Amino acid sequence: MKITKSDDSLANSLHQRRQKLASLINFPTILWSGRSTPRNYPALTFPFRASSHFLYFSGLPLENAAIRLESGKLELFLDDAPASSTLWHGEMPKRAEIAELIGADAAFPMAELKSRSSSRAPLTTNAATIAVQDAFTQLQQSQILDRPLAPPTSPTGIDLELTKAIVSLRLSHDAASLAELRQAAAVTVEAHKAGMAATRNAQIEAGVRAAMESVIISENMTYAYPSIVTVHGEVLHSEHYHNSLQTGDLLLADVGAETSTGWAADVTRTWPVSGKFSPTQRAIYDVVLAAHDACIDYISPGVEYQDIHLLAARIMAEGLVDLGILRGNVEDLVEMDAHALFFVHGIGHLIGLDVHDMEDLGDLAGYEEGRTRSSRFGLGFLRLNRVLRPGMLVSIEPGFYQVPAILNNPENRTKYEDFVKWEELEKFADVRGIRIEDDILVSEKGGEVLTGKLPTKAPEIEELVALNT
Amino acid sequence: MKITKSDDSLANSLHQRRQKLASLINFPTILWSGRSTPRNYPALTFPFRASSHFLYFSGLPLENAAIRLESGKLELFLDDAPASSTLWHGEMPKRAEIAELIGADAAFPMAELKSRSSSRAPLTTNAATIAVQDAFTQLQQSQILDRPLAPPTSPTGIDLELTKAIVSLRLSHDAASLAELRQAAAVTVEAHKAGMAATRNAQIEAGVRAAMESVIISENMTYAYPSIVTVHGEVLHSEHYHNSLQTGDLLLADVGAETSTGWAADVTRTWPVSGKFSPTQRAIYDVVLAAHDACIDYISPGVEYQDIHLLAARIMAEGLVDLGILRGNVEDLVEMDAHALFFVHGIGHLIGLDVHDMEDLGDLAGYEEGRTRSSRFGLGFLRLNRVLRPGMLVSIEPGFYQVPAILNNPENRTKYEDFVKWEELEKFADVRGIRIEDDILVSEKGGEVLTGKLPTKAPEIEELVALNT
Repeated sequence: MKITKSDDSLANSLHQRRQKLASLINFPTILWSGRSTPRNYPALTFPFRASSHFLYFSGLPLENAAIRLESGKLELFLDDAPASSTLWHGEMPKRAEIAELIGADAAFPMAELKSRSSSRAPLTTNAATIAVQDAFTQLQQSQILDRPLAPPTSPTGIDLELTKAIVSLRLSHDAASLAELRQAAAVTVEAHKAGMAATRNAQIEAGVRAAMESVIISENMTYAYPSIVTVHGEVLHSEHYHNSLQTGDLLLADVGAETSTGWAADVTRTWPVSGKFSPTQRAIYDVVLAAHDACIDYISPGVEYQDIHLLAARIMAEGLVDLGILRGNVEDLVEMDAHALFFVHGIGHLIGLDVHDMEDLGDLAGYEEGRTRSSRFGLGFLRLNRVLRPGMLVSIEPGFYQVPAILNNPENRTKYEDFVKWEELEKFADVRGIRIEDDILVSEKGGEVLTGKLPTKAPEIEELVALNT
Repeated sequence: MKITKSDDSLANSLHQRRQKLASLINFPTILWSGRSTPRNYPALTFPFRASSHFLYFSGLPLENAAIRLESGKLELFLDDAPASSTLWHGEMPKRAEIAELIGADAAFPMAELKSRSSSRAPLTTNAATIAVQDAFTQLQQSQILDRPLAPPTSPTGIDLELTKAIVSLRLSHDAASLAELRQAAAVTVEAHKAGMAATRNAQIEAGVRAAMESVIISENMTYAYPSIVTVHGEVLHSEHYHNSLQTGDLLLADVGAETSTGWAADVTRTWPVSGKFSPTQRAIYDVVLAAHDACIDYISPGVEYQDIHLLAARIMAEGLVDLGILRGNVEDLVEMDAHALFFVHGIGHLIGLDVHDMEDLGDLAGYEEGRTRSSRFGLGFLRLNRVLRPGMLVSIEPGFYQVPAILNNPENRTKYEDFVKWEELEKFADVRGIRIEDDILVSEKGGEVLTGKLPTKAPEIEELVALNT
């Protein structure tokens, strides 16, 4: 961990977050950072990733740490590294230094989280928490709080109250988080440009992935999620990179950076391996881009995010009617989810400390209180169903996919028999998957595209691919 | 996972491994692969890494799978992916296809591991296992075997017998594993060359790291361990990459690739950021290289690995006496561990499916039965203490470090007062850490350096750095 003491802005931002939390709940909170999980053996672990809720209030990826928040005060619990670890890990910042940096009111060894009592009730009495992801730390949480812990998707009592308060805070980004999110977005833009430029010299998908992640790593960031770099864009979360790049293929790259304190970007572009879209690829690309642009234009405080999804659905349906793939009235087609045969996912999601922000809480963050997932084929996969408010960062990511399991499904074939022109569709066989995704900040003025420096128009994309290095 | 059916060599190798295991133990074995661990939330995990013992006998990184081995027969337990996962992950190979590929005698859904009984006793009766690293699967192992599970470092009963048998097999690599290890070594060599060539244009350590990992990723491999790319070579396991590269700095890079089926390489080179070693850097470099070369020359079946460590210690001590840093008789200096003030770790370790192969078993693999760690300052950190035998792959990695916590330790200052010329040492202040590491296969003819295509001599290293891209 790099510790810089350039200014007090971190401490100030954290102070404000604590104050806001204190205005929403009147009981103490303890948040754990978690620990790194072994990969091959205990000394060879996956890279440590602190719990996002902990990061939000502590600002630093401290391993095996906890913070206790009460009435706007912050107590840090962290063990100093043993002297013997210096040989392996170098001089680590001391608890006292870290405490000062994050503006903690007090700092103690981890053991005191359980044992230290004050004039008031024991520290852990009636403290709320959110269960972290790693099983070992979950056990610790339960032991220290001396009660069973519900999964973070179904908290109860004060844990539920805390969860709602944290969701309300994390939904709208403050200046400090926006500064990080803008950095993640900027590096992600460069990664995509590098990917495009590397395509014509790459033999397999992995070559493009390497060029993209190299930009992220060289900025001392990490990827916010497993990169998707595939000629099989119809596989939504493909994690294979072995396919060869063929002239005529489209390459779909969904790659995003995460800053060292955990803030994410999430961007997708789809480009032709050859540097030139075929007419059929270009036609579908422009339909997806029309949906992308219209949705971004529509973003504004007060707008229902689900309406943005439905807007994308209409534009997709309309475009596919114009191309002769769908037939019928656009409103009817959307009503019967015909668009969802091709646009198989939601228009987007929240972005923040997680690429699907707060998805550890299930739908408690993504869905307005009282709302639940729709049972409709064309809506049930929507991850976000809220009224937009200033400071929210959302993705807009329309897509078109030819998923064999969906298009060859006999039920779908029957249901949509009169509405899909299957022979026309066959002409578009060289379009397996196209997605165009940007990150948009909701502001009073509308939507600000944080990733807007990365072109979306087909000719500009072609030009970037042609810049092969 | 890429499944290719190009030949039967995988199935044949696995068959031979099972036969060898059956010749050593007469009870059934069940090995679990483990599952991926959540990073931010359950759908966003760290990349899956199967347990190495499972990989050794199954050959493929199958998630949430188990294999049962008995009398040379292999039964595979694996659930087919649900149809709904096709959208997200594409068409996955079916259990039957995988079973054929790895030469399984039978294949079943996971649930049958517990429930299926045969004419003989229930499948799990008296089966031995080794506990995997992830807590969730450990629990599953214990539940299915219906008994508590000791940590893999301290197995008992048939688990201990199994562990010893697997150690004996995995200690000597067969043709199939050697083919993988050679691939990992070849890609690692290229990664280091790319790192050297990228140094003069990089601003910070992360820039060199990016160039090196990019080679690994573009070959569709992963890194076998967190890359060390640092101007602070004296921090043995530094995982920071933010330091700027200054003329006059040495950059130490310890980076290794891992093939898609889990086989590792482990290579370190140290090079001058400027492309030119200073005279003091060059002098120490040549001492470390002399130790490196002599140790590799000494490798042969029947040799005690600890003697190789002591050989390195003598050469290091001798070199430091010649440079005027140490004073005294070389044998005496080694006897009193004076070399260990600078050469602060062991000469190397086993390499295989883990970069420190089988370190999940503690010292059960690294140490010959009946041997334990020395309490000597200069020997206690040795990870390998065995007689070398053909087919073993070991690292040879002598190093010189100026670790403030060791050199400024008052006890050391007193103990070595007459043997270290501290003023002379000050002249070498521009050498914080140097390590030179290669991977050597023990063969009947001696040692074969799998990573031998990467130069070690100072002028050749300088030349590679000068090839800045």
